Amino acid sequence: MKFTVSKNELNTALQNVSHAISPNSPQPALRGIRLEAVNDSLLITGSDADVSIFYTMKKDENNHLNVIEEGAILVESRYLNEIVKKIDSDEITAEIIDGALTRFSGNSAQFKINGMRPDDYPAIDFSRPASSVTMNSSDLNLIIEQTAFAASAKETRPVLTGVNFKTADHMLYVTATDSYRLAKKNIPLDTDAEFNVTIPAKSLNEVKATMLNREEEIEIAVSDKKAQFISECMILQTRLLDGGYPETDRLIPKEFSYTLDINRYDLIRAIDRTTFIKNENMTINRLQMTQEEVILTNKSQEIGESHENLAAVFEGEPLDISFSGNYVMDAAKALKGENIRISFTGDMKPFILTSPEDDSVMQLVLPVRTYN
Amino acid sequence: MKFTVSKNELNTALQNVSHAISPNSPQPALRGIRLEAVNDSLLITGSDADVSIFYTMKKDENNHLNVIEEGAILVESRYLNEIVKKIDSDEITAEIIDGALTRFSGNSAQFKINGMRPDDYPAIDFSRPASSVTMNSSDLNLIIEQTAFAASAKETRPVLTGVNFKTADHMLYVTATDSYRLAKKNIPLDTDAEFNVTIPAKSLNEVKATMLNREEEIEIAVSDKKAQFISECMILQTRLLDGGYPETDRLIPKEFSYTLDINRYDLIRAIDRTTFIKNENMTINRLQMTQEEVILTNKSQEIGESHENLAAVFEGEPLDISFSGNYVMDAAKALKGENIRISFTGDMKPFILTSPEDDSVMQLVLPVRTYN
Repeated sequence: MKFTVSKNELNTALQNVSHAISPNSPQPALRGIRLEAVNDSLLITGSDADVSIFYTMKKDENNHLNVIEEGAILVESRYLNEIVKKIDSDEITAEIIDGALTRFSGNSAQFKINGMRPDDYPAIDFSRPASSVTMNSSDLNLIIEQTAFAASAKETRPVLTGVNFKTADHMLYVTATDSYRLAKKNIPLDTDAEFNVTIPAKSLNEVKATMLNREEEIEIAVSDKKAQFISECMILQTRLLDGGYPETDRLIPKEFSYTLDINRYDLIRAIDRTTFIKNENMTINRLQMTQEEVILTNKSQEIGESHENLAAVFEGEPLDISFSGNYVMDAAKALKGENIRISFTGDMKPFILTSPEDDSVMQLVLPVRTYN
Repeated sequence: MKFTVSKNELNTALQNVSHAISPNSPQPALRGIRLEAVNDSLLITGSDADVSIFYTMKKDENNHLNVIEEGAILVESRYLNEIVKKIDSDEITAEIIDGALTRFSGNSAQFKINGMRPDDYPAIDFSRPASSVTMNSSDLNLIIEQTAFAASAKETRPVLTGVNFKTADHMLYVTATDSYRLAKKNIPLDTDAEFNVTIPAKSLNEVKATMLNREEEIEIAVSDKKAQFISECMILQTRLLDGGYPETDRLIPKEFSYTLDINRYDLIRAIDRTTFIKNENMTINRLQMTQEEVILTNKSQEIGESHENLAAVFEGEPLDISFSGNYVMDAAKALKGENIRISFTGDMKPFILTSPEDDSVMQLVLPVRTYN
């Protein structure tokens, strides 16, 4: 194997592929990045077994790729990243010189690194599942931003650490819940693809970090074993979470007796001001709402209390409700636009946050009982 | 106690004073910031027993300080900082409303915080030592940058965790060493002050972080118990390290048989490229120098090796020497200017790094033995 390539373009590719790598993986091969020079392409693979990334760099006028001899090598990712980031030239040459010993050369600087045999790398099946939908990268970015945060951080019910993607009747329904809050996004689809899968939220955040920074079409291809996110030069493949995803539609109230309309930023800032007042490490806010005034408070025996009059419009009988401030802040941040509406059915019933400008997304939060 | 003051000015003062505070101090009073409103001033104190900061905010047109009722309170620093950072107004009002219960008010937002009794705060003696020198903040900043990094990070010989400040014959000699490297800076003084004290490097880094961001005169006042750094609005007081500081002058070679002249950035970048190649967690670089070529290498059985031809001018018989790459990089970073000279007396003798543009500062590094 021998090739030369633009240092910056290779660096960008490696940064993306490295997102799939656990540098301290107990499986040494998985600490590595697999480089394969073939034809006029450089194929770069990284994996932590849950997420695998396959990057194809085709020769073009930006990357100046020149494959002099075909072949493959496996190099520990942290060494490869350091070399490519810091080499003293615009182009870098990589060449296997003896077994797995690989030379990387810049201008005056040269590194001979003990690689690993590419055959030691696990065989990863990157074949493309048949069922797929395509969407713009910015749309996918918004879906992930508006849902993935609501997935569970705890492994007690593994399926809840994922985000459910389900198609029906030319619609894509995306749902995440940790059983105390729920985020739901609905998108019209122009395909007949049918699937119902739960993708780890962590994998979706890797998709967001690696593929969604520029405008392009992203294909999402799904089987019952895996999901692939496919851009022009990259495939990010993730395992799915086993187990049926809970039916959540019946949890979402449809009729509301109370509504609160408020500037989204005002609400976020008002709660944020009080987050240091904690009870058992939780920030619990209380909203006391009448048509005359809307009061947000937070109280802790130890620390003290906050009190703020919100500029908000409340409709309904007086209502007094308490909730996790962080959950409501997360939900308000995930909605976009200037204003939000919070709709309630009662003081111990789930309430929902929606945006008057965008009915594709809904955030639900369960209240908490307090003894104020 | 009751006062109003500009939120931004109070925030700046609290950020500075907070540098002295350990938020999880076992002594609850030391988690607090002491606020005292007196006359037309707000006095703000923070301390972790090693370092204490006393900030005086005098009423002026920027801070809009208005002392309505004199008095003092002690408030946990993390709560106070959060409130002042996030309050919804340009001015904040603080008022003791009951015992130690203190109200902070903005526009709509209001906090009642359980303070502590100001009498619970330890008595800190901020009286000014008689012996003092004055220098510009940027000069003091450079002294700290060029020496403090070389102090020991280990507590095995506590006095080496400090930086020695010693006056003699109208000169200030500043020295730091961890016994493997040494930094020395000499400054002419126009006072007769006489002292020889060792200030914790950590305290000097607090001085740098809090007082040296703008041009002003800084007074350094020293007794055998403490040192004070005094700016217009702030006193930072630190304990000293006990024990005699080692005599280091005899360690510094005066005659050299070899010199290497090199661009400072080239040297830093060349070493930095190789820092990932480690032996027992240390980066050991080897320089092989002749008048024809200067080769920098780094080798590890496990990882591989680097090789780089440096554009440098070497004078003397051929020399082969190995050293900690991080120590030489630190020394080169601490020197300023385009070029540096490295002067050697032999392959197992300390060598020194100097700047041709500035003879006030010298960096010494001990070589390491290798078995290449």
